[in-house]
Amino acid sequence: MRNFVNLNQLSTQAITSLIVASLAYKNGEKGLPQMTQHVANLFFENSTRTASSFQMAESKLGWSTININPATSSTQKGESLSDTLKTLGAIGVDVVVLRHSINDWYRPLIEEQSPLMPKLVNAGDGNGQHPSQSLLDLMTIYEQFGYFEGLHIRIVGDLSHSRVARSNAEILNRLGATVSFAGPADWYPTDFDQYGNYQAIDEDLNDIDVLMLLRVQHERLAADENQKFSIDEYHEQFGLTHERYNQLKDDAIIMHPAPVNRGVEIADDLVEADKARIFTQMANGVYARMAILSAMIEEKSYDTITN
Amino acid sequence: MRNFVNLNQLSTQAITSLIVASLAYKNGEKGLPQMTQHVANLFFENSTRTASSFQMAESKLGWSTININPATSSTQKGESLSDTLKTLGAIGVDVVVLRHSINDWYRPLIEEQSPLMPKLVNAGDGNGQHPSQSLLDLMTIYEQFGYFEGLHIRIVGDLSHSRVARSNAEILNRLGATVSFAGPADWYPTDFDQYGNYQAIDEDLNDIDVLMLLRVQHERLAADENQKFSIDEYHEQFGLTHERYNQLKDDAIIMHPAPVNRGVEIADDLVEADKARIFTQMANGVYARMAILSAMIEEKSYDTITN
Amino acid sequence: MRNFVNLNQLSTQAITSLIVASLAYKNGEKGLPQMTQHVANLFFENSTRTASSFQMAESKLGWSTININPATSSTQKGESLSDTLKTLGAIGVDVVVLRHSINDWYRPLIEEQSPLMPKLVNAGDGNGQHPSQSLLDLMTIYEQFGYFEGLHIRIVGDLSHSRVARSNAEILNRLGATVSFAGPADWYPTDFDQYGNYQAIDEDLNDIDVLMLLRVQHERLAADENQKFSIDEYHEQFGLTHERYNQLKDDAIIMHPAPVNRGVEIADDLVEADKARIFTQMANGVYARMAILSAMIEEKSYDTITN
Repeated sequence: MRNFVNLNQLSTQAITSLIVASLAYKNGEKGLPQMTQHVANLFFENSTRTASSFQMAESKLGWSTININPATSSTQKGESLSDTLKTLGAIGVDVVVLRHSINDWYRPLIEEQSPLMPKLVNAGDGNGQHPSQSLLDLMTIYEQFGYFEGLHIRIVGDLSHSRVARSNAEILNRLGATVSFAGPADWYPTDFDQYGNYQAIDEDLNDIDVLMLLRVQHERLAADENQKFSIDEYHEQFGLTHERYNQLKDDAIIMHPAPVNRGVEIADDLVEADKARIFTQMANGVYARMAILSAMIEEKSYDTITN
Repeated sequence: MRNFVNLNQLSTQAITSLIVASLAYKNGEKGLPQMTQHVANLFFENSTRTASSFQMAESKLGWSTININPATSSTQKGESLSDTLKTLGAIGVDVVVLRHSINDWYRPLIEEQSPLMPKLVNAGDGNGQHPSQSLLDLMTIYEQFGYFEGLHIRIVGDLSHSRVARSNAEILNRLGATVSFAGPADWYPTDFDQYGNYQAIDEDLNDIDVLMLLRVQHERLAADENQKFSIDEYHEQFGLTHERYNQLKDDAIIMHPAPVNRGVEIADDLVEADKARIFTQMANGVYARMAILSAMIEEKSYDTITN
Repeated sequence: MRNFVNLNQLSTQAITSLIVASLAYKNGEKGLPQMTQHVANLFFENSTRTASSFQMAESKLGWSTININPATSSTQKGESLSDTLKTLGAIGVDVVVLRHSINDWYRPLIEEQSPLMPKLVNAGDGNGQHPSQSLLDLMTIYEQFGYFEGLHIRIVGDLSHSRVARSNAEILNRLGATVSFAGPADWYPTDFDQYGNYQAIDEDLNDIDVLMLLRVQHERLAADENQKFSIDEYHEQFGLTHERYNQLKDDAIIMHPAPVNRGVEIADDLVEADKARIFTQMANGVYARMAILSAMIEEKSYDTITN
């Protein structure tokens, strides 16, 4: 696996291997002693948790990091992303972790045959993918149940703007889980039908194993003239209220990619409730990223599905 | 000592222990080999010397640091400080060093019982406390004299906006020193009477052991319509001139938290004069912060005085 | 060599030693085990490649770095650069790598006799010097040919705004090379006559060993009312076209300090052509900077030529 840019392009076996490796790191595995890798973290969009989580993963692997603030970088002088990355490769950077607002920013770059191009990790592209988030989501489900076959996962909320909903739905299908969707109808992309049914959030709530809530993006809502509900109404209609919480099975879990809008997607005092795994997801993210980075260096021959 | 947020809440014995530990680090002590701690530095207000000093202390202790620029963090997406900190705790950050413009920002946070909350260091809160600065001030005095009992410390300047004047005055009283105050009358909070007398700066100047000058905050002065003197007049009326310098005892010392306004609080060419300890304070800050961070990890049972 | 601020002030022997040391690092030399040095990188002007390259050099030497963002530093509170640097010296910083828009920013600082002042590296001053770039340019030429005597180097482009053209021309003369200049007449400073002839770019092109292209600074051009050509015309008149490339000798090399304006100074698909050494220069920069930093610590007695 030279680059880690899109989880869906990996085979089911490769994804399973990454999940198992993530849990091994969580259980204290140190990995093989390796040559020090040089990694640069390059976030063109704001991030605390993903950027911090990658830094922690790199630190725990003993890697060396180069800090670059894109706001003060040469891309401001009109340099192309390709030239910036090849410059980093030239000075000895092995891996670049990059987030950018452009969808599929990585696609032209991984097709370049230049030996200068460092290995690339997609830490989020526009409203496209967020593959390390997808992996930690899958890891969190597997950690809870030990299998995917037959689980019922319901994904609720802003499906059209989420970087993980489509990705998770496709892979969960492959892994044998049943997926359903809920939330505002305007936010439901009809081609999601291929992955599961669009239902009312309250339908069969006592049959769900995983309730995966998505973040309501205030900044995107503000620009939507056709919005049919207020932030306050969202909670009542589509959020996790106490009433809904109590309908869930005892061993059901609640997930959210964070940052959480407390009182919107989920009631304030349920964020750290027994069934919630929101902070567990953040903890798991470090181990998932250790597994990703290690796999890139070990050059494990993960077969990829071409799109 | 789980958190280090307010020096005045510590017992006299605990403060003395921290001073002794600070001087031991300065004298080359390496401390016990410890497990690597992960620390995040999170400065919501500008800082060079405090931020750099903490980084150096962490580096000398062999700790691992996560760099976060609050300007690009999720707090910009409306996330609460509590959730940001618990996220850092979830990904494995043990200690967060934090400066914020809100007074007592740490108070609600240290009352949370969440196991996710990392240990907190207050690196400055609004115009409240700056406890690591207070500790390095005390360390610098103790390094010079070897005792506090009977010393006369005069604190001069913008007493009402200082983050260390009140804190230092209270502790110096506890340690047996005599404290007096000088500076513009409008900047003297009358409740400081409990810690010492308000006097003319020139009164008994030849009897002072420590002259502690405070920074004139240009930015705060600009907003004060009632200001009765210009920046230039400040130096003549309240600053350390050559004339005043020569009246000081041979073994008296001059302190200032920096950055210094040269020619305002102190004549330009006195900043590095024999009696000045201004750059010594900066050097001592690294060792004081090593002592603080170590004490938090060793979980020494410093009793605290509840407010 | 206490400070590294101006390559032209070093003796020819000292420059040669630095080139040899740079190539030794490239060939795998690890240098003597040394005490860890603390270095602070302080870039008051934007930079990706120089800042990243110094970080990588420091990392490979095993040095410890303090990260300071000048935008949030105390220089914003009106503190002088001298006081900021002496503060860093006080907290234990051994070396400061600094870029600033002011020409000769380092001159008053290296004349201060304060023991607090750290050693200084000039990472670029205004339109003055960029001595680590000059060193890596010389290293790249020497790596290719193994000597300077008799080589013909042509420097093409914005000679008046370049931080390396004058510096490189003076040293190449000292080292026995022949230098010539080309580019827009308005951008040719007539006192460059002392270092070589101003010629048409196409004159004797098949006799050149090194074609050193300079960056066209869009931002500076935009402000120039007298500009006699468009960006597009620049390429035809002064840029490296395929036709010119084919006239060069087989073992001639092409250099550029980067970032490159593809299609302006050089045709897009020639940036990584066989004769191009542009990314090699970037790779070499790390080793040149390792040599610079090491020489400052080893206090090698490089004699300097006083200006």
